[in-house]
Amino acid sequence: MILSALLTSVGINVALCFLFLILYTILRNRPSNAELYVPRLVAEGKFQEYNASGVRGFFSSFKWVKRAWQPTENELLENSGLDAVVFMRIFIFGLRVFRFAAIVGIFILLPFNYMGNQLTIDFTDLPNKSLETFSISNVDDGSNMLWVHFSAVYIFTVVVCYLLYSEYDDIAALRLSYFYSSKPRPSQFTVLVRSIPVTAGRSFSETIESFFSEYYPSTYLSHSVIHRTGKLQGLVNKADKAYKKLVHLESKKYTPQNSKRGCCLGICGRKAERVDQYEKKLEDVEGDMRAEQLSLAGKEVPAAFVSFKTRFSAAIVSHLQQGLKPTDWVTEPAPDPQDIHWPFFSASFFKKWMCNIAVVFTCLLITIMFLVPVLIAQGLTNLAQLETMLPFLSGILKLELVTQVVTGYLPSLILETFLDLVPPVMIVLSSIQGYIAHSQIEKSACIKMLWFTVWNVFFANVLSGTALYRIDVLLEPKRIPELLAVAVPGQASFFIAYVVTSGWTKTFSSELFRVKRLMLNILKGSLCCDSDDELEVPSNPYHKEIPRILFFSLLGITYFFLSPLILPFVMIYYGLGYIIYRNQLLNVYSPKFETGGKFWPVVHDATIVFLVLMHVIAIGIFGLKKLPLASSLTIPLPILTLLFHGYCRRRFLPSFKGFPAECMINKDRLDQNDPTISSFYEKLATAYEDPAMERVRRSEASESSTTPLLSSYR
Amino acid sequence: MILSALLTSVGINVALCFLFLILYTILRNRPSNAELYVPRLVAEGKFQEYNASGVRGFFSSFKWVKRAWQPTENELLENSGLDAVVFMRIFIFGLRVFRFAAIVGIFILLPFNYMGNQLTIDFTDLPNKSLETFSISNVDDGSNMLWVHFSAVYIFTVVVCYLLYSEYDDIAALRLSYFYSSKPRPSQFTVLVRSIPVTAGRSFSETIESFFSEYYPSTYLSHSVIHRTGKLQGLVNKADKAYKKLVHLESKKYTPQNSKRGCCLGICGRKAERVDQYEKKLEDVEGDMRAEQLSLAGKEVPAAFVSFKTRFSAAIVSHLQQGLKPTDWVTEPAPDPQDIHWPFFSASFFKKWMCNIAVVFTCLLITIMFLVPVLIAQGLTNLAQLETMLPFLSGILKLELVTQVVTGYLPSLILETFLDLVPPVMIVLSSIQGYIAHSQIEKSACIKMLWFTVWNVFFANVLSGTALYRIDVLLEPKRIPELLAVAVPGQASFFIAYVVTSGWTKTFSSELFRVKRLMLNILKGSLCCDSDDELEVPSNPYHKEIPRILFFSLLGITYFFLSPLILPFVMIYYGLGYIIYRNQLLNVYSPKFETGGKFWPVVHDATIVFLVLMHVIAIGIFGLKKLPLASSLTIPLPILTLLFHGYCRRRFLPSFKGFPAECMINKDRLDQNDPTISSFYEKLATAYEDPAMERVRRSEASESSTTPLLSSYR
Repeated sequence: MILSALLTSVGINVALCFLFLILYTILRNRPSNAELYVPRLVAEGKFQEYNASGVRGFFSSFKWVKRAWQPTENELLENSGLDAVVFMRIFIFGLRVFRFAAIVGIFILLPFNYMGNQLTIDFTDLPNKSLETFSISNVDDGSNMLWVHFSAVYIFTVVVCYLLYSEYDDIAALRLSYFYSSKPRPSQFTVLVRSIPVTAGRSFSETIESFFSEYYPSTYLSHSVIHRTGKLQGLVNKADKAYKKLVHLESKKYTPQNSKRGCCLGICGRKAERVDQYEKKLEDVEGDMRAEQLSLAGKEVPAAFVSFKTRFSAAIVSHLQQGLKPTDWVTEPAPDPQDIHWPFFSASFFKKWMCNIAVVFTCLLITIMFLVPVLIAQGLTNLAQLETMLPFLSGILKLELVTQVVTGYLPSLILETFLDLVPPVMIVLSSIQGYIAHSQIEKSACIKMLWFTVWNVFFANVLSGTALYRIDVLLEPKRIPELLAVAVPGQASFFIAYVVTSGWTKTFSSELFRVKRLMLNILKGSLCCDSDDELEVPSNPYHKEIPRILFFSLLGITYFFLSPLILPFVMIYYGLGYIIYRNQLLNVYSPKFETGGKFWPVVHDATIVFLVLMHVIAIGIFGLKKLPLASSLTIPLPILTLLFHGYCRRRFLPSFKGFPAECMINKDRLDQNDPTISSFYEKLATAYEDPAMERVRRSEASESSTTPLLSSYR
Repeated sequence: MILSALLTSVGINVALCFLFLILYTILRNRPSNAELYVPRLVAEGKFQEYNASGVRGFFSSFKWVKRAWQPTENELLENSGLDAVVFMRIFIFGLRVFRFAAIVGIFILLPFNYMGNQLTIDFTDLPNKSLETFSISNVDDGSNMLWVHFSAVYIFTVVVCYLLYSEYDDIAALRLSYFYSSKPRPSQFTVLVRSIPVTAGRSFSETIESFFSEYYPSTYLSHSVIHRTGKLQGLVNKADKAYKKLVHLESKKYTPQNSKRGCCLGICGRKAERVDQYEKKLEDVEGDMRAEQLSLAGKEVPAAFVSFKTRFSAAIVSHLQQGLKPTDWVTEPAPDPQDIHWPFFSASFFKKWMCNIAVVFTCLLITIMFLVPVLIAQGLTNLAQLETMLPFLSGILKLELVTQVVTGYLPSLILETFLDLVPPVMIVLSSIQGYIAHSQIEKSACIKMLWFTVWNVFFANVLSGTALYRIDVLLEPKRIPELLAVAVPGQASFFIAYVVTSGWTKTFSSELFRVKRLMLNILKGSLCCDSDDELEVPSNPYHKEIPRILFFSLLGITYFFLSPLILPFVMIYYGLGYIIYRNQLLNVYSPKFETGGKFWPVVHDATIVFLVLMHVIAIGIFGLKKLPLASSLTIPLPILTLLFHGYCRRRFLPSFKGFPAECMINKDRLDQNDPTISSFYEKLATAYEDPAMERVRRSEASESSTTPLLSSYR
């Protein structure tokens, strides 16, 4: 790609970004769009207050930027929890790293690259210069200038490691102080016990009661046995749906002005009839629920949530082997009640085992299938190849603009679209793997997605470009650095374009402007069925966002010394992301769970891997550039980086797995003097009830009325 | 090797065994040999009683066999601890496995092998038949008889896995019941705390005191900070030595009849002078000790043994992260006081790290250097090769007997001698790796020794024979089964000879007859210096014995279907071993430490690896014998075996790492009602004092006398 093509791409994308920005600024203040752009404020009832405060000038509309910028980290912590703070730290960390990298890259490395004469391209005007002129490929073989690159790699690694260390340290401290300042949460006091042994003539509930009140008499509080409620949950969902319809119909009875819109296309029958129909349905479902409920006693799962009076006791039970057989009384820390993935408990051991095998194979299959869009995208960057394959295109491809759009913009758009389809699949895969909490599922999907992205976007692109995408290279580890050194620099221009399209425009369009959601709303509005959905406040899809964000780190880190031209673009991406995601966290997303910053180790590990990858490429490049001494001297760098990683794992990772005894004992003592603790204990005793069971219980409580289920909703 | 050569070897070895057996029986009843053959009884003062009970006829001398056989497992448990019982279980397990294997192998597989016609050897008399006639090599290629071998492999695997499971289960239960029945032991109540944070203006002792009495006020008992006592220990040893000499000289003053022997070769001076000299020396050492002791306060290590009133508290502290920083207050279960490896605490972190790297390299070096004796031993089995290399030997080698001795006996003797040199090296290597207890060092050395034996005795012999001992085969995993299938059956006769020489004769000579020790005693007696050593009761060198014993399992398991002729020999080995080691455990070895059966997981893991190795060879053999279907059908077998192993790890291994909460709480409750517990607590408070420090304290207590150190000994 030549410089002008890059500029075209940047131009198009900047224009698009501005377009989205202006559209967003205009649309977000319209109350009809409030549910789309500030759902969280609407749900919290703050929208009116928020809207009133804004003045309606065009430029003052941009105040949202200031509003997103202003809150301190502490305010964000209070508002959105520690996970959101940690999420924003990814951007801050990225900005810090790439600020340094960009200064070194642009002001030191780039001039040295440009001064080289390796690539003898005869045209001299700057716009037509190939981007390769600015990359390490242009430095002469064996030139001493490469020692500058060598030093840059060492210094950059030290800086990144220092930043990683201080960030890890800071977040670990933040996690502890968050724990100290947090109110008592059920998960802190509760343990999930599985594989409860069967005792003849005793229910699981009795077994648990006798076991824990014998061995933990002073701190055992309560327990709730888990039932297989899959079927009941289905019925409850059915009832919910029927009830919603019913309420909707009833509300319309008295609002004739809606009837025109509600009955367009003329599908809706007479309302009274329909109300009867739904009431009938509701009663049927109720009958089924009763039947299901009776058989539920037999559907006990040998697992239970056991709550204690102190955090320390819960930690003891979850860390120590309880029963004589290590496979009995298996304990683990419980997630928060709203975070539990209930369907998990319905699955049998064998089913989970089969599912795990299936997940591995599906992941492999997805990875292989994904090569198709990658190869298409790559085909577009190699126009010559495309022309020979599809000769009828050659006429169109002769146009300058088309060529530039096709090489600069289309490939990354195609890749991006396909990449969007993967995260939901990964969530499904993780959820059948047997995790007990949504947060665990999301973390697992995040890790899967991260390596999928690295492999399928980075490696597949890099290696398909040089037609060396062969698995057998893995069997010759010595050749890997050389192979990467040949392949990676060649893809610099593709990835610069990728940062601009996928990083900038995508963040504006799909994240800030929520373009898909907007389309959907418009589509819904234009069709008959009016939106009778409740307002749904989305949660931040970490599994989708974190891998995307980290991927730009990968690009920035690996191309740091190869093609420093990418660095300003990556830095701008992190700057834009910082503002936009802050805005989204404050206005759009509401936290669904709180892991206490458990996503940070994923970020840390990934950054270390990226660094090592850079070192491997450096070893290859210096070898290729005929500076074997530099190549050999780079070898200690990945080893030292991995040693640093090992130290960090030992030093920080345990802090993210649990809390220290010192902390828990102190917090417990504070609680004992708190007068509200007894009411918390009462709540705790029922906190871990299955939502389906709880619904049934509520319906039973209102048994006296004629339609108990209906009245339970009211 | 032909059958007659094997018979010669067996004959020689049986004769040797008988010789050793008779010599042992004669010599063991002589009181002068009591310290050699029944040191444990002597040390426990039971020798007289034991000796009196025996009648002095020749045949009644063999009663020791009966005495070794008679005690039940419970008596052995009481007498020698759980480790000894687990050690004997290796023999029982081996007998069970190879009893089954021998029946299947000799009565089913052997006839099928013999009936084959693959090896067309023209001589027909049985004594000259090559041993290969009895092995799988003789079965025709593609013959359906191989399905018998295939079924045998499957059935054998199932049987071994069943036996492994039941043995693991049994030993885990034994471990628990041993814990229940054991008296309170200091290690159960104590935790080793390392990396105690430095607090300004406070000693480590004060920091520990305040930390544990704040967070564990009800159960914290005491602590003892560890000092760097390497130098002091050296001085104490010096003092001990000088004192012993002194006592020895003084005792001689009044026993003139000893003077003749004591002064042979005329080296000893006038006694009075020497006594003065040693007293002077003792006083010097005492002065040094005082100086060292004064500087000891500054040599505190940030580590301490912290004792609690209950086992459960100690377990809690050792399992949960204590301090805010995961690298502070690092806890682990403490070993028993007599099991502690004190020099470890003197080493700095950096030194330990360097040592670890050095250990890895030394292990590699030893492995490579060890190829020399292996190749020599192999050279002797290939006589033709030897003759061409050393032509002058051809005259001697023409003699039938010499040939048979050289091929049948010498190779394994050479190998065995060199192999004997390795265990002490492994102990040294393990002890500088940073383990805190002798038992841990021995376990680590045991594992090192096991893989060393498997690699250097099994693989090196197998692969050097076929000149394919090349590391690069490891890079082509698909070729491994084929390679092994070619190489392993060829070494069957060598390994049969190895079982007979190394298994039978070695066990008799070096274990029962303690030939080296006997030689040493005779040598000492014939030289001037009379033995002024105290009676030293040895402990069972697990790190040396377990790998040796397991190696015969490896041979038995891998050759089970290849060359079943080996099986009776292995079975006899386990039978002999059972009697001999029982005798040694009861009369010779006294337990130095008690791990509670922690050596069993090593045995279990090794057996699983041996099974998988057999499966890999089977896959290769069936492929080689042109029965690809059987080869493919064997592939699930190693996978299933490894799944079984995974299950066992989950099911049993945690039981060998600690004790369940249920157990500890029960045991603690029993103790609380025990009146002796308060005296145990008193002892516990001083149990973890450094032996060097304790000695100094004792010498201080007797300060009033003129020569305090001297009086401290008296």
